[in-house]
Amino acid sequence: MTRKIKIDDDLYIGADEFIVIAGPCAVESQDQMDLIGREFHKLGVKIIRGGAFKPRTNPQSFQGLGFEGLRILKALKDAYGFKIVSEILDPRDVEEAYDYIDIYQIGSRNMQNYSLLREVGRQDKPVLLKRGMNATYDEWLNASDYISIEGNNNIILCERGIRTFNDYTRNTLNLMSVPIMKSKTDYPIIADPSHGTGRRDLILPASKAALAIGADGLIIEVHPEPEKALSDGNQSLNIDEFKGLLKEINGLKSEK
Amino acid sequence: MTRKIKIDDDLYIGADEFIVIAGPCAVESQDQMDLIGREFHKLGVKIIRGGAFKPRTNPQSFQGLGFEGLRILKALKDAYGFKIVSEILDPRDVEEAYDYIDIYQIGSRNMQNYSLLREVGRQDKPVLLKRGMNATYDEWLNASDYISIEGNNNIILCERGIRTFNDYTRNTLNLMSVPIMKSKTDYPIIADPSHGTGRRDLILPASKAALAIGADGLIIEVHPEPEKALSDGNQSLNIDEFKGLLKEINGLKSEK
Amino acid sequence: MTRKIKIDDDLYIGADEFIVIAGPCAVESQDQMDLIGREFHKLGVKIIRGGAFKPRTNPQSFQGLGFEGLRILKALKDAYGFKIVSEILDPRDVEEAYDYIDIYQIGSRNMQNYSLLREVGRQDKPVLLKRGMNATYDEWLNASDYISIEGNNNIILCERGIRTFNDYTRNTLNLMSVPIMKSKTDYPIIADPSHGTGRRDLILPASKAALAIGADGLIIEVHPEPEKALSDGNQSLNIDEFKGLLKEINGLKSEK
Amino acid sequence: MTRKIKIDDDLYIGADEFIVIAGPCAVESQDQMDLIGREFHKLGVKIIRGGAFKPRTNPQSFQGLGFEGLRILKALKDAYGFKIVSEILDPRDVEEAYDYIDIYQIGSRNMQNYSLLREVGRQDKPVLLKRGMNATYDEWLNASDYISIEGNNNIILCERGIRTFNDYTRNTLNLMSVPIMKSKTDYPIIADPSHGTGRRDLILPASKAALAIGADGLIIEVHPEPEKALSDGNQSLNIDEFKGLLKEINGLKSEK
Repeated sequence: MTRKIKIDDDLYIGADEFIVIAGPCAVESQDQMDLIGREFHKLGVKIIRGGAFKPRTNPQSFQGLGFEGLRILKALKDAYGFKIVSEILDPRDVEEAYDYIDIYQIGSRNMQNYSLLREVGRQDKPVLLKRGMNATYDEWLNASDYISIEGNNNIILCERGIRTFNDYTRNTLNLMSVPIMKSKTDYPIIADPSHGTGRRDLILPASKAALAIGADGLIIEVHPEPEKALSDGNQSLNIDEFKGLLKEINGLKSEK
Repeated sequence: MTRKIKIDDDLYIGADEFIVIAGPCAVESQDQMDLIGREFHKLGVKIIRGGAFKPRTNPQSFQGLGFEGLRILKALKDAYGFKIVSEILDPRDVEEAYDYIDIYQIGSRNMQNYSLLREVGRQDKPVLLKRGMNATYDEWLNASDYISIEGNNNIILCERGIRTFNDYTRNTLNLMSVPIMKSKTDYPIIADPSHGTGRRDLILPASKAALAIGADGLIIEVHPEPEKALSDGNQSLNIDEFKGLLKEINGLKSEK
Repeated sequence: MTRKIKIDDDLYIGADEFIVIAGPCAVESQDQMDLIGREFHKLGVKIIRGGAFKPRTNPQSFQGLGFEGLRILKALKDAYGFKIVSEILDPRDVEEAYDYIDIYQIGSRNMQNYSLLREVGRQDKPVLLKRGMNATYDEWLNASDYISIEGNNNIILCERGIRTFNDYTRNTLNLMSVPIMKSKTDYPIIADPSHGTGRRDLILPASKAALAIGADGLIIEVHPEPEKALSDGNQSLNIDEFKGLLKEINGLKSEK
Repeated sequence: MTRKIKIDDDLYIGADEFIVIAGPCAVESQDQMDLIGREFHKLGVKIIRGGAFKPRTNPQSFQGLGFEGLRILKALKDAYGFKIVSEILDPRDVEEAYDYIDIYQIGSRNMQNYSLLREVGRQDKPVLLKRGMNATYDEWLNASDYISIEGNNNIILCERGIRTFNDYTRNTLNLMSVPIMKSKTDYPIIADPSHGTGRRDLILPASKAALAIGADGLIIEVHPEPEKALSDGNQSLNIDEFKGLLKEINGLKSEK
């Protein structure tokens, strides 16, 4: 049995409903997020992702808006009732971020950043724990132990691709981790086809396979104008593409 | 558009129907195959796999029955009308095997055995080309070119898992290769969840995901008594488990 | 030309001398370190490594003595004049650790912990930056940029093995990174054959190859009683084995 | 103790002498090989490598001169007394090639081509067995068992790089395989820095490390005009570069 992680009064990850989280890689501006907010509200999206602190490989790349980004997300939340998931990089930011977000995201680069894991483990909000690019299944589980040992069992696992010799995609989305992790723990697990593939055209087939293999949801990068995105444009859907994906996924869900 | 590979008058791989190929890792005896033949006939299985020449890592391991194994398969084919797929390891066996089998299988160890590829390329029967454990997508495509350059375009690709750092499964079944190879070529592609995972409990979820992501079929190891199998028992379904899988897959197919 | 990183008045990493850093995986007790201090002083070792904050995969494993461990290292330094390298895991510990250690170590799990990198980048002490287990050469270089962008150019790279499909060693020590990184940057680079192989018997041959390929030094795990070590015993040399290694390496150095 | 593989009356691989095998990736013409023959004779090279059957990833690429290439090598051998190592791809060529070559080479793509392994196992000439790009140490050893089980124990292992996530070199030359394979078997082992790195500038440092770690020799690609080579030009040394390498390696050998 999968553990149900409560996000809101009627919203769980790990329960019957297959949850689609979506939003831009990075929060770039108030305008960008207003547009996304209006569209997502119409589409019935309940949880928005958006990066405020961006762990960019190169320090010269756009590093995110920081707390200003979190404030923009909070405004959206207040206006529409969205729940917010956003990545935290520094243990010193965990407490201050508490008021802005509903789910702490731990990114793949920080899966073994134990200070950070312990810090979110001391909070009473759910944690989305991405798999490290080279983490074994047990190392991933051990990372979750660093959170739960501090008292927080509200953990959502997220498969986001591993690093292999494959050269066509950014990472190798390993959907087998869904049934494997479900055999090792009762935490729900969602898939991130955007980072897992790095290619817009692969997001829909990967999403359908994630649903079929038993994942509890998806986290998808959506940007109003992917070609102008400050990061990860190649793997972001535009709003119309995202509508198409939602429609296909909802069709498959209803058959279940 | 996927190319339809004709297997029989009304049987294609790459057409609308999702094809489930099944059979034991190795042909072990006439009795074993008689039992499988009767059961598979009742289940409506149309293509049987069975290894006569086994590429075992250790030369002391059971190496297969060779042409005696092919004769057993041929008897089954004559009795029930099955089509037969079996792996060939040596270019010198290709011609003699022609009369016994309907689809030549090239295994992952031989994906870059160019003499063997050219030899099956000179035949007028379809070739099932498994991906090498460390082959890039383009190397896999180049391997198919060694077959087609000799005149044989009846190629069926087969994803059977790649080698990564993952330590829980025998290989890492990479279902993303289905949409990726479909974007690069029009050959149909099937998935081998038995070798791709090496674990009986993962075969069903992997099969459902393969169907969802757009694969043209499956190749599954089934053995009347997996615990007594001379090879690959851990990843073989017994007949009842296989019935269950067929039922689930057929249910999903009808929703398409 | 390799950049010389000053460690002490007459001690540089990256200059002509090939530097052997050694010490236990973890600082376990005052007695353990006293014994090591006496022996290493006789052997002419100038830089001691010792873990106070241990990034253990499992939160139930021994996590190190923390600042108590750093105090033990400091006492050794005061008594014998050793220079100390020790790993820091949490950006909040960087300032307090400043008084105890001479070289900040960033471990492989934290190679992309950008908050931590920036924090040591603000200090005026050298940083030993280990390669992440799955980091490309450019990602490693980008990690060093997070340190230097804050003003600290005193960076020593450390190859400590990458994660591959190899199953006999803990990691795959990739000595090719020595000439490759030297072609991309002027930072010195040392090798860690202890973590890179995880096997005591491979440390000497790996060390000789590291010297031959142009590394600027080694960092080696040495424990008075490896079989009783609280972590990494299998890959630690005892004092006699370490003496043997030093003798062989010094013999080869003199031929240079 | 390493097994001494006899190549000629006074020539062994696995004995005290560190052996440098060299020659072009592919035999391209009589003129090319005459030039190499004259130069190598002056340099004291005793074993020449040269590809007659080329296992090219793409079937449209130059596939080698075949037996015509072997005849050119044989003429060189008759003129100067060189010993010849050349790769065989097809079990049907093994017997005919016997009269031309002194060491059968099994390439990495064919490490698990068991028909081919058995066929060279039936000959009384040494076999150079390259490691497969994704072979574990035990799979490599098992491949050698396919040769020795047929009666031929004259096996020379060759590390030529494995496939990892590394993106700067063609493969990841894993010199750790030298002490590891020496702990598992008594066959000698040589290193191939040309294929192992794919970059001319890395061949010398890799060769020095191979000598230091205990390899029994090297196999190096040398071409009179690498920029005009029909294959692998980027990783071939020209004659002057090769002279420089020989001089450095001979200097280090004399210190042993």
